[in-house]
Amino acid sequence: MRAVKWYGPFDLRVEEAPEPTIRLNEDALVRPTAAAICGTDLHVYTGALTVVPGGVLGHEFMGVVEKVGKDVKRFREGERVIVSAWIADGSCWFCRRQLHTQCENTNIFGMGPAYGESLDGAFADLVRVPYADTVMIKAPEGVPDEKLVMVSDALPTGHDAIINAGMEPGDIVAILGCGPIGLLSGMCAATYGASHVIAIDMVRERLEMARSLGFTTINASEVDPAEEVRNMTDGRGADIVVEAVGKTVEPLRTAIDMVRKKGTVSVVGFHLQEYNIPVGGLWLTEKRVIFSIGNPIRSGERLTRLIASGKIDPSRIISHRVDLEKVPMGFELFEKKKALKVLVKY
Amino acid sequence: MRAVKWYGPFDLRVEEAPEPTIRLNEDALVRPTAAAICGTDLHVYTGALTVVPGGVLGHEFMGVVEKVGKDVKRFREGERVIVSAWIADGSCWFCRRQLHTQCENTNIFGMGPAYGESLDGAFADLVRVPYADTVMIKAPEGVPDEKLVMVSDALPTGHDAIINAGMEPGDIVAILGCGPIGLLSGMCAATYGASHVIAIDMVRERLEMARSLGFTTINASEVDPAEEVRNMTDGRGADIVVEAVGKTVEPLRTAIDMVRKKGTVSVVGFHLQEYNIPVGGLWLTEKRVIFSIGNPIRSGERLTRLIASGKIDPSRIISHRVDLEKVPMGFELFEKKKALKVLVKY
Amino acid sequence: MRAVKWYGPFDLRVEEAPEPTIRLNEDALVRPTAAAICGTDLHVYTGALTVVPGGVLGHEFMGVVEKVGKDVKRFREGERVIVSAWIADGSCWFCRRQLHTQCENTNIFGMGPAYGESLDGAFADLVRVPYADTVMIKAPEGVPDEKLVMVSDALPTGHDAIINAGMEPGDIVAILGCGPIGLLSGMCAATYGASHVIAIDMVRERLEMARSLGFTTINASEVDPAEEVRNMTDGRGADIVVEAVGKTVEPLRTAIDMVRKKGTVSVVGFHLQEYNIPVGGLWLTEKRVIFSIGNPIRSGERLTRLIASGKIDPSRIISHRVDLEKVPMGFELFEKKKALKVLVKY
Amino acid sequence: MRAVKWYGPFDLRVEEAPEPTIRLNEDALVRPTAAAICGTDLHVYTGALTVVPGGVLGHEFMGVVEKVGKDVKRFREGERVIVSAWIADGSCWFCRRQLHTQCENTNIFGMGPAYGESLDGAFADLVRVPYADTVMIKAPEGVPDEKLVMVSDALPTGHDAIINAGMEPGDIVAILGCGPIGLLSGMCAATYGASHVIAIDMVRERLEMARSLGFTTINASEVDPAEEVRNMTDGRGADIVVEAVGKTVEPLRTAIDMVRKKGTVSVVGFHLQEYNIPVGGLWLTEKRVIFSIGNPIRSGERLTRLIASGKIDPSRIISHRVDLEKVPMGFELFEKKKALKVLVKY
Repeated sequence: MRAVKWYGPFDLRVEEAPEPTIRLNEDALVRPTAAAICGTDLHVYTGALTVVPGGVLGHEFMGVVEKVGKDVKRFREGERVIVSAWIADGSCWFCRRQLHTQCENTNIFGMGPAYGESLDGAFADLVRVPYADTVMIKAPEGVPDEKLVMVSDALPTGHDAIINAGMEPGDIVAILGCGPIGLLSGMCAATYGASHVIAIDMVRERLEMARSLGFTTINASEVDPAEEVRNMTDGRGADIVVEAVGKTVEPLRTAIDMVRKKGTVSVVGFHLQEYNIPVGGLWLTEKRVIFSIGNPIRSGERLTRLIASGKIDPSRIISHRVDLEKVPMGFELFEKKKALKVLVKY
Repeated sequence: MRAVKWYGPFDLRVEEAPEPTIRLNEDALVRPTAAAICGTDLHVYTGALTVVPGGVLGHEFMGVVEKVGKDVKRFREGERVIVSAWIADGSCWFCRRQLHTQCENTNIFGMGPAYGESLDGAFADLVRVPYADTVMIKAPEGVPDEKLVMVSDALPTGHDAIINAGMEPGDIVAILGCGPIGLLSGMCAATYGASHVIAIDMVRERLEMARSLGFTTINASEVDPAEEVRNMTDGRGADIVVEAVGKTVEPLRTAIDMVRKKGTVSVVGFHLQEYNIPVGGLWLTEKRVIFSIGNPIRSGERLTRLIASGKIDPSRIISHRVDLEKVPMGFELFEKKKALKVLVKY
Repeated sequence: MRAVKWYGPFDLRVEEAPEPTIRLNEDALVRPTAAAICGTDLHVYTGALTVVPGGVLGHEFMGVVEKVGKDVKRFREGERVIVSAWIADGSCWFCRRQLHTQCENTNIFGMGPAYGESLDGAFADLVRVPYADTVMIKAPEGVPDEKLVMVSDALPTGHDAIINAGMEPGDIVAILGCGPIGLLSGMCAATYGASHVIAIDMVRERLEMARSLGFTTINASEVDPAEEVRNMTDGRGADIVVEAVGKTVEPLRTAIDMVRKKGTVSVVGFHLQEYNIPVGGLWLTEKRVIFSIGNPIRSGERLTRLIASGKIDPSRIISHRVDLEKVPMGFELFEKKKALKVLVKY
Repeated sequence: MRAVKWYGPFDLRVEEAPEPTIRLNEDALVRPTAAAICGTDLHVYTGALTVVPGGVLGHEFMGVVEKVGKDVKRFREGERVIVSAWIADGSCWFCRRQLHTQCENTNIFGMGPAYGESLDGAFADLVRVPYADTVMIKAPEGVPDEKLVMVSDALPTGHDAIINAGMEPGDIVAILGCGPIGLLSGMCAATYGASHVIAIDMVRERLEMARSLGFTTINASEVDPAEEVRNMTDGRGADIVVEAVGKTVEPLRTAIDMVRKKGTVSVVGFHLQEYNIPVGGLWLTEKRVIFSIGNPIRSGERLTRLIASGKIDPSRIISHRVDLEKVPMGFELFEKKKALKVLVKY
């Protein structure tokens, strides 16, 4: 089968690889029909996260069940499924409390040995899926792949950014960073009753996309975004600020500055480091800082229903569609911010 | 000034009346600019609820502050305000817990002596508003009256029907009864992230209105609505059913039948009596039954924000606009279900 | 093996029976070390609920794993476990939302064919447990059986009565009915921060037990309990009333009368019928009525921790301890209200 | 009247001062009967926070109403009240959402001009209380001052540390720092159903006090407390960690280390600075960091009820009782950690 393998920073190759097989009774094999390049993949692409050379990339995907291990009960061959990017065993202390992203046996496709065993990724013609009953979500009939595929990862991340922050209808939500996760967070906020979604970025195309989704926009290269948000909110700041930039301390500090007293900074940006944070100010103003990795296992079913009924359409942020062979090019475009979200077709 | 007075069932008269005055330091006088006929008014109109002959009707309204008592701090003459239909003192045990509709000094405009002192209603050129700091809500600039006036009563009732039921994004919400409260409940459910709103009625025009708002509809004169809802939900029933018909036991029993196990029946229909309820079935399926009167004091500000940003537009359900002198005709149309929601202009 | 079988109302016999075997790969066999007679068992005993003659009774129990089917992952032979009285498959729509008591494949031990297949009960030397990974809870080391056994059923029912009602620290909770479920509800309320637990019954011994647990008591044969509760609460009524009597409408009506406006009636009493309920009054005062069956699968682990740390001790309500052979006598005592809670030893 | 005035670091003097008077119609004058020295006072004492020389200290207090302004409705002369250390106007955007500690007109007694107008403190024979209807709480009859006085500040801080963290019954709560706020947080956690409260400090007397309150203790000078907590929790860490030390980064980093994945660090320690925080680790493990200042206005009434019923007794942490004239000595003892909590009598 075909597989997109990583051999070093910026070195992806489409090669032949042996097909995976059922190894444990709870496994399934899934033949992908759609996948997407996720922001986390980029960190591997650039070498910020390291995988084993020759490892197959890709974790946001859906497809058709090719085969199931004999302990799999909920699924059968031929069923169309979305696969949670995060693996969870469904039975540990965390899973029994619905905290699947922190499962004691967690793992993630195509990200190398970060969580123990290295699981081959989804940019390939066939994928082995562990704990299939737990991690697979039924795809509703009649809904195209490109609307559903982000239920695997990016959409639940946007959902949890908003839900974990305790958003109430009528809240004002600011989104710092109009990449895929930021835009999907804004889409969830708007769908769940935010009165205003204020989207902030510096890239003109991304701000245009944000406007087309109905958000108010601020170009952070032109004005101080925190001050601007306060101007829009009688001086208070936003009820919730989603920090969807990551990587450095600046966006987090801006988010803390931008949120109102007793408000919540909801971090979904990717961070690896330690930073200098104004703890004294947080204390005095009783702001909360929370961190979310999206949980498709808990929220996937309700998200598919919102998509099927037309309330949310994640495909609106897809800027490019490439065949599996063109995945390396998709990465290149995404890394240069020429692509917003790249859909992979098989 | 002009005032619409009740003299007996179906006997409303527009007459001259003396203007009210500030009686207590926390009072304000408000000159209405818009009002609406509420379903509860109908019960007075038909004689189901009795007021003192000569009493002025009307409780859903907004207007301009004409004068404030000397303890009023939040408002000044000339400000545009929405007035909560329910009076609350802002300081009793219930108000301090934000349960204003059960205030120890509660009252309601234009409904006679049901809650002690009889308060003259809003279908008049000037209205005395007790506890003005607590019960008045600032009207946002630039938003027309007809979009805002229902924040006084009907819209918070729809809001609380959904919020008190604990709706989560992706839930399926059925609305039993497409009168104003039912439709506004559905509007809130849709705005706050219901994946599907299923609206049920027998009146063709009301079902058409429901469809125009984006709801799926069931004509209860053609099919068994509970069965139909189960067909739409893999046999489970709706996550939440709003009972917005009232008056008899049938809609409540249908709602109980229609909600899924562990789901919530949220009653906003008006009830005065005792009924035979299938308690054994409720117990076995762990369904909840909750009752809500809308609380404009708690949710009014966020609702005005949702209206100002265009997320909710209650004016879509207005079917008739009448001048104050024509209020009696408005009642007649509403009582015969020829009108859905009657706006009163001054 | 020995087994307590039902042959008709008031006709229980201890007889020899064949040992059960593993039938499905997710089954376990458990050798009970402790069980208890539950109020629901009484309904079978008296014939209110019917089981197949010769059926083995008993559903509240714990024991030692004798054997596991080959798909069971969380447990091994020799482990000490508490078994949820309610069966749940762990994977249906309801279970994935932690609503296990309404599982699409639910069942209960020893209650006959009410839920499809008739599952033999726990008053026997060996019990077949379906979906063992889902329904079994690890028993903490060093804690005696008699403290833990009620985690199987009665204690989670008391827990859910309080938690599902949304109790907040400082609330005043009234318990209507001082049988085992009522007393355990009161114990949970007290442990979770109720400022006052007011226990109501007519049986002197039960009121004494309630007092010994630290509750304030009202003898409903001497005073009007609703009026008395209002006297204790500045005229308001209790924040939460647990209706733990069941069977007839009176306790439910008393509970509705006794709860404050905007308060919650939490029904755990067993009901089979329809009743005349004051819906008009519920609407006007916005009271909620909720129904709970205890969910050991969701709350069992945290309850065992509260027991292990000494915060809750359900064994305090045990009035009698009998050997398996004496179960029929235990039923007789319990049915005559001479026993409060009967522990069964093996 | 007598008043304890600040003239510089470690320089407190008891002097004569003119009695305050009613200045605004919403004011009350309160004659203190009990007060306490709060940890925040210490920061003024040592000069970390600056007040105007000659300013009267003290903000945690209760007393008897001496006189009320003419807009005060809820209170009368002679009534016994607890006074919220934090001032709130009761009507701004934050207050209307019950977020009184962030009131747009907030202030605090005896802390100088930090929040605008300098309000004289409670270590005096008479105190002017602004917004009396909002900030005063009725003291229940028959309960001694020393049990009630901390409802003014320290007890609601402990309460909110636990409640804002979303503690559920059965959770394991670690308390970092056994000063007054830490111990009261632990008392609240225990009263609201924590299965275990683990208290951590280095001062032997404070650990003894913690043990006497029923907490498990760890001496952080002997072992690594985070490791020890993990050992007690199957390797996971505490569900909630209350950081009640403040001032430097170390306790906050320890708290982050000590809490389980998806758990909550609830900061009530006093912080003024910026710190280096392991944001990458927080993100990966989805831990939340929240900050609380106690809100007596929202929770005061329910706390007085818990005290009146004996469920919480804050007076257990009082180590010293001094007369007003001896307040300077009380500060000295407290600053040297020879006193745990100093009660002031008048």
